Amino acid sequence: MTGISEEESVSLDLLKKKMAEFAKERDWDQFHSPRNLLLALVGEVGELSEIFQWRGEVPKGLPDWKEEEKQHLGEELSDVLLYLVRLSDICGIDLGKAALRKVDLNAIKYPVSKTNLNNEGSPSH
Amino acid sequence: MTGISEEESVSLDLLKKKMAEFAKERDWDQFHSPRNLLLALVGEVGELSEIFQWRGEVPKGLPDWKEEEKQHLGEELSDVLLYLVRLSDICGIDLGKAALRKVDLNAIKYPVSKTNLNNEGSPSH
Amino acid sequence: MTGISEEESVSLDLLKKKMAEFAKERDWDQFHSPRNLLLALVGEVGELSEIFQWRGEVPKGLPDWKEEEKQHLGEELSDVLLYLVRLSDICGIDLGKAALRKVDLNAIKYPVSKTNLNNEGSPSH
Amino acid sequence: MTGISEEESVSLDLLKKKMAEFAKERDWDQFHSPRNLLLALVGEVGELSEIFQWRGEVPKGLPDWKEEEKQHLGEELSDVLLYLVRLSDICGIDLGKAALRKVDLNAIKYPVSKTNLNNEGSPSH
Repeated sequence: MTGISEEESVSLDLLKKKMAEFAKERDWDQFHSPRNLLLALVGEVGELSEIFQWRGEVPKGLPDWKEEEKQHLGEELSDVLLYLVRLSDICGIDLGKAALRKVDLNAIKYPVSKTNLNNEGSPSH
Repeated sequence: MTGISEEESVSLDLLKKKMAEFAKERDWDQFHSPRNLLLALVGEVGELSEIFQWRGEVPKGLPDWKEEEKQHLGEELSDVLLYLVRLSDICGIDLGKAALRKVDLNAIKYPVSKTNLNNEGSPSH
Repeated sequence: MTGISEEESVSLDLLKKKMAEFAKERDWDQFHSPRNLLLALVGEVGELSEIFQWRGEVPKGLPDWKEEEKQHLGEELSDVLLYLVRLSDICGIDLGKAALRKVDLNAIKYPVSKTNLNNEGSPSH
Repeated sequence: MTGISEEESVSLDLLKKKMAEFAKERDWDQFHSPRNLLLALVGEVGELSEIFQWRGEVPKGLPDWKEEEKQHLGEELSDVLLYLVRLSDICGIDLGKAALRKVDLNAIKYPVSKTNLNNEGSPSH
């Protein structure tokens, strides 16, 4: 159903195409304006936050979480991603290209040697 | 610098690896706990919202935006994506797999025929 | 049940006391750490956004909204407010005092004469 | 009945009036549509989150924070509050009244006796 083998890595373009197709089939393009999608994204970030809200600090890898809790988390992370991909597409932004560019910009903004000297405290990023 | 040709599609795994490497080189793993990353994500969603906040409705494709405004938007969209990818990784969630699964779940939740009959009003999704 | 007459104006201190009492009675103080409350606030902002997400631009006063929709909106606005009041209290911040101070700071940052000259475009605030 | 004099306690109505005046003086009413204000609110929640993002858990009362950090926090909490108050006003919602009503609704939803029995784990609120 997903159209790719499990070994393959999922690309942003694949998700973009799936979202575009999904909206078209349901005649939802009319609702997918930039600010509608942005607010939908904020809504999903809220649902993601709700998963973490009463837990105090959570260790990496979520060792104590039940399988169904992790699955729920995966769904909320995905909802944020899917709206982000869709929002980018509707705005005419190539998200994958922009993300690679941003990583490069971050590497310039936070050079390895300099940040290592500073890392006793919290990062400024 | 990005390590992939421009024609290739950017995968979530590539971004995950880049983020992991980036954090390791700067000794930032210590700061990348799930809730720290989640709050950083919320911060970036805030910056994304600021771009749209005083504009009223914005048409698809952002026809009236200057090139530098679009580039800024691409950067904020990327910041959200990069923290989302990193948060997923730190939580041990395969974001790409989860996203494909969520698209399939959404297709079951909103069957094409049914949603088409309802689309005079706003979608319930 | 609210303890004040409808004519009186609701103060931030009253809400603070009500929230503190509410948490104490339910033994919820243990959950009300700053970051837990912050994430709960983000969750409520998400629910508030969901109300507006598929509507396109919405005119002031919400002329076309049903009474139950307005009531729902009032509940989500309140949820954000109540967590904000509680978060401030738990952080030891006097929210009312801080808000009055911020209004004064904003008045200095955006002097009346200057902003009026600029208001053909969008505000920079 | 609130037990506090008007000079001491800041009311939501006072903030509403101050915000309305502030916008009018600067001819900003034109920008203060519901969704513009909502996105501005999300932007401020992002700035609030940034304060907490790299700190890990933060104890109540913020014992280790510098005075200037607390003041900054007060400013961001205020920004969220001021946009919330303004958004409510523009939507025609009496925020104070709605908040008192919501506290009462919460008291019905989470009765004291029942929640006390459940509070070994995390609250479901």
